[in-house]
Amino acid sequence: MSGIWGNNIKLSIFGESHGKAIGINIDGLEPGIELDLDYINKEMGRRAPGKSKLATSRKEEDSFQILSGYFNGRTTGTPLCAIIYNTNQHSKDYEKTKNLMRPSHGDFTGYIKYKGFNDYRGGGHFSGRITAPLVFAGAVCKQILEKKGIVIGSHIKSIGKLEDKSFNMVDIDEKVLITLRENLFPTIDEKIALKMKDIIIKAREEKDSVGGVIETAVINLPVGIGEPFFDSVESTLAQLLFSIPAVKGVEFGSGFHITELKGSEANDEYYMDGDKVRTYSNNNGGVLGGITNGMPLVFRVAIKPTPSISKVQRTIDIDSGKNREMEIIGRHDPCIVPRALPVVEAAAAIAILDLC
Amino acid sequence: MSGIWGNNIKLSIFGESHGKAIGINIDGLEPGIELDLDYINKEMGRRAPGKSKLATSRKEEDSFQILSGYFNGRTTGTPLCAIIYNTNQHSKDYEKTKNLMRPSHGDFTGYIKYKGFNDYRGGGHFSGRITAPLVFAGAVCKQILEKKGIVIGSHIKSIGKLEDKSFNMVDIDEKVLITLRENLFPTIDEKIALKMKDIIIKAREEKDSVGGVIETAVINLPVGIGEPFFDSVESTLAQLLFSIPAVKGVEFGSGFHITELKGSEANDEYYMDGDKVRTYSNNNGGVLGGITNGMPLVFRVAIKPTPSISKVQRTIDIDSGKNREMEIIGRHDPCIVPRALPVVEAAAAIAILDLC
Amino acid sequence: MSGIWGNNIKLSIFGESHGKAIGINIDGLEPGIELDLDYINKEMGRRAPGKSKLATSRKEEDSFQILSGYFNGRTTGTPLCAIIYNTNQHSKDYEKTKNLMRPSHGDFTGYIKYKGFNDYRGGGHFSGRITAPLVFAGAVCKQILEKKGIVIGSHIKSIGKLEDKSFNMVDIDEKVLITLRENLFPTIDEKIALKMKDIIIKAREEKDSVGGVIETAVINLPVGIGEPFFDSVESTLAQLLFSIPAVKGVEFGSGFHITELKGSEANDEYYMDGDKVRTYSNNNGGVLGGITNGMPLVFRVAIKPTPSISKVQRTIDIDSGKNREMEIIGRHDPCIVPRALPVVEAAAAIAILDLC
Amino acid sequence: MSGIWGNNIKLSIFGESHGKAIGINIDGLEPGIELDLDYINKEMGRRAPGKSKLATSRKEEDSFQILSGYFNGRTTGTPLCAIIYNTNQHSKDYEKTKNLMRPSHGDFTGYIKYKGFNDYRGGGHFSGRITAPLVFAGAVCKQILEKKGIVIGSHIKSIGKLEDKSFNMVDIDEKVLITLRENLFPTIDEKIALKMKDIIIKAREEKDSVGGVIETAVINLPVGIGEPFFDSVESTLAQLLFSIPAVKGVEFGSGFHITELKGSEANDEYYMDGDKVRTYSNNNGGVLGGITNGMPLVFRVAIKPTPSISKVQRTIDIDSGKNREMEIIGRHDPCIVPRALPVVEAAAAIAILDLC
Repeated sequence: MSGIWGNNIKLSIFGESHGKAIGINIDGLEPGIELDLDYINKEMGRRAPGKSKLATSRKEEDSFQILSGYFNGRTTGTPLCAIIYNTNQHSKDYEKTKNLMRPSHGDFTGYIKYKGFNDYRGGGHFSGRITAPLVFAGAVCKQILEKKGIVIGSHIKSIGKLEDKSFNMVDIDEKVLITLRENLFPTIDEKIALKMKDIIIKAREEKDSVGGVIETAVINLPVGIGEPFFDSVESTLAQLLFSIPAVKGVEFGSGFHITELKGSEANDEYYMDGDKVRTYSNNNGGVLGGITNGMPLVFRVAIKPTPSISKVQRTIDIDSGKNREMEIIGRHDPCIVPRALPVVEAAAAIAILDLC
Repeated sequence: MSGIWGNNIKLSIFGESHGKAIGINIDGLEPGIELDLDYINKEMGRRAPGKSKLATSRKEEDSFQILSGYFNGRTTGTPLCAIIYNTNQHSKDYEKTKNLMRPSHGDFTGYIKYKGFNDYRGGGHFSGRITAPLVFAGAVCKQILEKKGIVIGSHIKSIGKLEDKSFNMVDIDEKVLITLRENLFPTIDEKIALKMKDIIIKAREEKDSVGGVIETAVINLPVGIGEPFFDSVESTLAQLLFSIPAVKGVEFGSGFHITELKGSEANDEYYMDGDKVRTYSNNNGGVLGGITNGMPLVFRVAIKPTPSISKVQRTIDIDSGKNREMEIIGRHDPCIVPRALPVVEAAAAIAILDLC
Repeated sequence: MSGIWGNNIKLSIFGESHGKAIGINIDGLEPGIELDLDYINKEMGRRAPGKSKLATSRKEEDSFQILSGYFNGRTTGTPLCAIIYNTNQHSKDYEKTKNLMRPSHGDFTGYIKYKGFNDYRGGGHFSGRITAPLVFAGAVCKQILEKKGIVIGSHIKSIGKLEDKSFNMVDIDEKVLITLRENLFPTIDEKIALKMKDIIIKAREEKDSVGGVIETAVINLPVGIGEPFFDSVESTLAQLLFSIPAVKGVEFGSGFHITELKGSEANDEYYMDGDKVRTYSNNNGGVLGGITNGMPLVFRVAIKPTPSISKVQRTIDIDSGKNREMEIIGRHDPCIVPRALPVVEAAAAIAILDLC
Repeated sequence: MSGIWGNNIKLSIFGESHGKAIGINIDGLEPGIELDLDYINKEMGRRAPGKSKLATSRKEEDSFQILSGYFNGRTTGTPLCAIIYNTNQHSKDYEKTKNLMRPSHGDFTGYIKYKGFNDYRGGGHFSGRITAPLVFAGAVCKQILEKKGIVIGSHIKSIGKLEDKSFNMVDIDEKVLITLRENLFPTIDEKIALKMKDIIIKAREEKDSVGGVIETAVINLPVGIGEPFFDSVESTLAQLLFSIPAVKGVEFGSGFHITELKGSEANDEYYMDGDKVRTYSNNNGGVLGGITNGMPLVFRVAIKPTPSISKVQRTIDIDSGKNREMEIIGRHDPCIVPRALPVVEAAAAIAILDLC
């Protein structure tokens, strides 16, 4: 099982990169919510390929069709299903090399798990393309959260070893988050973006790829969202975030760095700010005991370098069981981080709406 | 909701630190599995407090009673419930300070979520003590996995800024893992353990606390465990790991470090090792596309410094809504890392058995 | 929440009668299963309207499109999604009368639940049309079960007060079940079918409708399927069966009649039939303690008379809150029993595959 | 899997008839609910054996211990676990006959499912005794529902062929329901109770047993509870009801009888009763489209004759695979209907609170 997620909002995802269509069914939405389809299109556009020379030239329309659960411009409260037809696939690219297991892809593990019956074209169900329906669902959830004042924003914290500034975790401005969202390559320090892009372009020229870290913040969350154990805010978010291909690490607040602090440094002491309870620091990233404390929810996600590189790589032929070499031809992103960023935000929106 | 987890193995956890008992109900175990109760006791002992001067002096018996699902020394296949009666509580310690929200604990968030009706004594349901039933469940799952040859082991990767060596991710010996498990303060470099202990003792003397990182490996996993999306190995493990109090980060393989590598460095190239498919490196930590690839599963967990410190801290009184100062009196661990380590292993065992 | 079901096989259903499309996503199918699409079409045809003068003249193509999870003629093991585009709707029929709550339909309860935002056209998500995706899923599951030798068949046990013979519950022949399935109006006593049809035609002439009982058998089930409590065979089947519109009763084996027997009459005594354990009677319908005992699984489902009748009925206008009268114009089945029968079988196939 | 149930309220049940304890963990209750423990005891007493000569003389204390989730007389909002220690078992009664499969019990199916490792003593996990924790959970849920004005009541509709009057489904008085609850053998027509008891006593004298039908009503439900498909009121209730041992049929409203009516007779026409929407009849038992319509929810449950009878019965020896005869010695109910009645109500209370 793999394609069902959630408690209050249930997602059911489906599709393969080169199949007929990909999509998602969302169950549990409130009835009567006006949906801004342009907003959804814009979010889809942030993830869509073909936007710049930093990314793959595969042009996916990513134009969605809502099949159900939407009537007279509003949600009906019954399951909302949307699909995206696949087009512009170069399926034949994959036919010749289907027995060569691309390193660090899901080819080999999928082959074994599904006994060779999985759709291998373009990574099939393992393709990053399957995150498009997640972005659709995220765009729906984000709108609903925004009506409650909850805002999500992200920036590229690092590309390779080059780092952007961090969010000031105790005080994050809504305008900053919204400005970041307008940018297809968002950084807090605008100058760093150019240098990061240089790194990516250089990687492409070298037939190589690079990874990076995405830092996301969610502000204006009420106190009391989440659960003490298995449905903690961190558990819920992490489960969704680690389902995004290429994610290899997730941390909240000061994350791994908190382990280098003393308790007296790490503890977020409370004070009354008028009627509101706040903390002087936010090393816990807005979550205590699995539950939001009203401070900004901040987390970071590690995205590995795109595994599809044009350099020669050693691999095996799964049919003959022999060692081989391969070059991955095709249209690939030298860095998936900018396109993964809206997916990370979508996961956050879905997770938080589910917990609300 | 918070206390139910799992697909094939379902856990239902309950209890408060100073209530009558804590426990867990495990549904979905195969019938006929012989359980080694000494093994379970030993695992419980690794987590239990009062073992050394590094830890709290609260003596918890942690002696479990199996109430159901166990007959003639074997599992019956019906739900296995075990409880641990609470004893040796100093509940009155908490009565006087119940309105003072301990920084970086679940006191404030729990108070708001449960509208003031939660059991505040000793952290109630938020207490680290509730991980004892998880260790019980983990000890059951570990035994079952070991019968299939799957072995789990961990070491303390760091305390504060002091680091142990790392696992050699492409080749981890079963004996090493088992040896680590025999040690209540396991490190790969034995000499580093003494220095780490010094750091902890010093923290205690300074009325402070320290955190650290736990590195865990699971070996001999078959290829094909896990799912492409929401039930990926990483998603499943992360959900459980983040439900452990004090965990603020989880990473797999090279984790956050992988973002600093080029694709050509990060990619784990395949080769045939006789009949077996292996990779030269293991930056993906044994998981590709959410599914095990047969290489060691390796992950790291960031544990924050114990929030209970005796230093004076600023906080609020939730009843009066006023700023206050507090010193946390009582028996507390200056470092929770050694006792968190068997909990992390338990989470791993449960997650993997659930996916198997 | 409403549209997700299952443990091992997960269904996610969506759609409204007059929306763009209806469909279902099936997660958890084994990879590599060859699907006979003609078989699926035939099953869909059994449910489809417009086949005879006994049913509505609305012609639904019910031609499905598989969007995912199907590659080279076989299941891939990843989610299998199929949709059916809606055509031939007369949506305007419903516009004028949308405020008149049709008696014994879901109009009023749906209006209140969804705060007036539900798609009211043709019953929307409450329409019997939404069972078409269930039949699709059932046809997939049936094929898989048949490869294991498990066969499902049904007959119309009664229309109004007119009864067909019953299955001989201790001994049901596979051929009989398959023959019944070839018939769009299956009865054991063939002569009774004509009389039943007369009852239905007469009801139509009187602008009225009739109900009936469907009796279904599943044979060649292995011993040991099902669970003692909440996932008992009866629980699992009943949950699915009662989700079919118009079902008001479900009983197993001798059902309500068993309450009139003495224990000594009702008990199904065992005997060895060669190597096989069998029972002399089968009042428990093949299920004991929630688990199959190897005898035929037999159950009966009560289908209420179609609520859409052309007679004048008293109702309310939900907008004005006034009493009104209405005649339901349109194309309606005077008896839904023959078309509900394949839906009942689909539910049985899905439930059993989920438990296997 | 078998022991987990629910969406908003999650139950996790455990225990065997002759094990150490039986119990239930209830997750998802609101915090701050005052619990009346006497009320719970009284409900437990209605199910408890040994109350009259109509029932088994096994005396079960059925005194529960709340282990968690309850503090200062109120629910905390965290999991509420309660257990009942087993006492007064005559385990040796079962040792000698453990290989003889009692007809119409779960002995044989449990033996096969659990490969012979299940606890066979007293039916183990299949015992009706495991419904005691359900009654505990039901008593908690009932109290919560009653604070919202929702009241549940039942009567014995029939014993064998002898029938009580039925509820007037369009108008059921709260007082009548509460009066029925005070009675351990509740009937609407008081005189019928004596005759029913005579039938039961006669069955005992004949070493035989009898079954019957329970009719339950739930009143003052708001409109809009339940879901259109898999979580319909009928589906949710039926899943729980069929998990009660001995239940072989469930019907709502006019149930199987509705199939004998014309649509014009069966349809429940609406009218305005002041501000309130009501129906003239209630053949649908208060549920339309899976959702409550504000009319009384009425259903009937068929309870089979107790399978434990002292008459000689034919059976098999599972060890030798030979035909045998057996007499079931021990303390057994000649009719389980009166003790099943509070279990049915408990299931109703749990199901409805879950859907609310």
